[in-house]
Amino acid sequence: MVNRLALFAVIIFAMATGATSAPAPSMGDILKASPPGAWRAIDPAETLYLDLPAGRVIIELAPAFAPHHVDNIKLLVRAGFFDGLAVVRVQDNYVAQWGDSDAAKPLGGAQKSLKAEFDRSYAPRLLFTTLPDKDVYAPVVGFSDGFPTARDPSAHRAWLAHCYGMVGVGRDVSADSGSGMELYAVIGHAPRHLDRNVALVGRVVRGIELLSALPRGTGDLGFYKTPAERTPIIRVRLAADLPPAERTPLEALRTNTPTFAALLQNRRFRSDDWYKRAAGRIDLCNMPLPVRAVTAR
Amino acid sequence: MVNRLALFAVIIFAMATGATSAPAPSMGDILKASPPGAWRAIDPAETLYLDLPAGRVIIELAPAFAPHHVDNIKLLVRAGFFDGLAVVRVQDNYVAQWGDSDAAKPLGGAQKSLKAEFDRSYAPRLLFTTLPDKDVYAPVVGFSDGFPTARDPSAHRAWLAHCYGMVGVGRDVSADSGSGMELYAVIGHAPRHLDRNVALVGRVVRGIELLSALPRGTGDLGFYKTPAERTPIIRVRLAADLPPAERTPLEALRTNTPTFAALLQNRRFRSDDWYKRAAGRIDLCNMPLPVRAVTAR
Repeated sequence: MVNRLALFAVIIFAMATGATSAPAPSMGDILKASPPGAWRAIDPAETLYLDLPAGRVIIELAPAFAPHHVDNIKLLVRAGFFDGLAVVRVQDNYVAQWGDSDAAKPLGGAQKSLKAEFDRSYAPRLLFTTLPDKDVYAPVVGFSDGFPTARDPSAHRAWLAHCYGMVGVGRDVSADSGSGMELYAVIGHAPRHLDRNVALVGRVVRGIELLSALPRGTGDLGFYKTPAERTPIIRVRLAADLPPAERTPLEALRTNTPTFAALLQNRRFRSDDWYKRAAGRIDLCNMPLPVRAVTAR
Repeated sequence: MVNRLALFAVIIFAMATGATSAPAPSMGDILKASPPGAWRAIDPAETLYLDLPAGRVIIELAPAFAPHHVDNIKLLVRAGFFDGLAVVRVQDNYVAQWGDSDAAKPLGGAQKSLKAEFDRSYAPRLLFTTLPDKDVYAPVVGFSDGFPTARDPSAHRAWLAHCYGMVGVGRDVSADSGSGMELYAVIGHAPRHLDRNVALVGRVVRGIELLSALPRGTGDLGFYKTPAERTPIIRVRLAADLPPAERTPLEALRTNTPTFAALLQNRRFRSDDWYKRAAGRIDLCNMPLPVRAVTAR
């Protein structure tokens, strides 16, 4: 512990002074030096497990941004709605999509359509750490407790951004036609033009490769042409509904901490020997949002 | 043909007048209406076929940006250097990498290291169509004859941008250590921090899903832990070196044409009924760069 704090002090000192005599700490160094308080347990009550034959995809839900959609998805999950459905669409450089809005399955009291939750007001106030760099799509971007987030200060609105791994609610043409019965995860370059057109409800924090490495569908929009090509869903569960032995406890780096600030600088100014030119800036969707297994301390 | 030209006239008229009474043409409409001169044949002398067991990945080389690296890669290809090597690394949301800088294989006169070609001067003049939107990483971005490109007007430098599907030359710590014996393709959110740190040599124009859907390596940096996990390379050939019957003739939409300008507006302002809010801008790496099969006319 002493070593960890000492290293952290060095990092903060180096950041404060701009000292360049010692080699800059790596991302691993920064994380290793992080104090326990820089991390928060990911709440099992806001965590989905999408269990596929190849393993578990873990999604942290974002009730702060789409509370009614998140509630509806929990009702569907608790009714076993997704169990036995499938990943039906994998479109290269875009999304993997699962579920079925037309499935004749128990809904557990969930609604079949919900009013749009594409953005939200600033109040009640959001945790927000502003990224100092430009963004192509939004006036201001940053991080809200581990989620990539955009804001429009003039309109006092905030919304989640369609970065890699973000999870959204498929919908029909009407803005108010989404329910959570069909969900997708981004598996390509951030399709930020979808921002504020879709309710984003969370982020894949483990196992995105179980979706991103699936065979691409060869039908329109990457839908599989035959049911045989689909990847079956064994079950979807809320972590809190499983006995502790079946959970995968995780914690996320708080994005309003000195550790995250150090990491952000590290990513904006790559300083290891391989880089000949540090960008000096970073795209919102290129910033790692660290998540780690909870280990006994 | 008459219909195609008529539709194209409507599109151009709508663009010029900002007319909104008729439904805006779709991307498909715009491409269908494009005159033949809006397309250029992709030169077989600048086209690589990376033949994998699952199919053919087609790469258009970019000699305008990295002439010595492109020449070196052609020597390697003609010596059969890549044949029997493998895809050795697939790192999620980053790159798929193939080849081997240490392979004891015939080099065909190719160099084992080359001076860096990370950017180039404006002169001789490049075709360049400026994107009107901001960019996080570069002062100016746009399209150079089908390649996503960045510029720094104050330094009179231009360079290819690390968008999805771009192909680069792996190198060691020294800037001058790349050869083309190891190549990678971007399979995730654009790692633009690599711009000007690597020689980009081309773009995958067909078959990127044969790389992006490969299983991720579980070793450091996505390297496969065992040779058995690797995807073997059947062969790499220059299209021009194959008999016509074995080629896959393609043409690329010229990015300095009214068709491309119409397409760009269409992508910046999504106007179909599904979109409730058009972004009004686009990230360089979100712009489709259409390629199509050459069909008998």
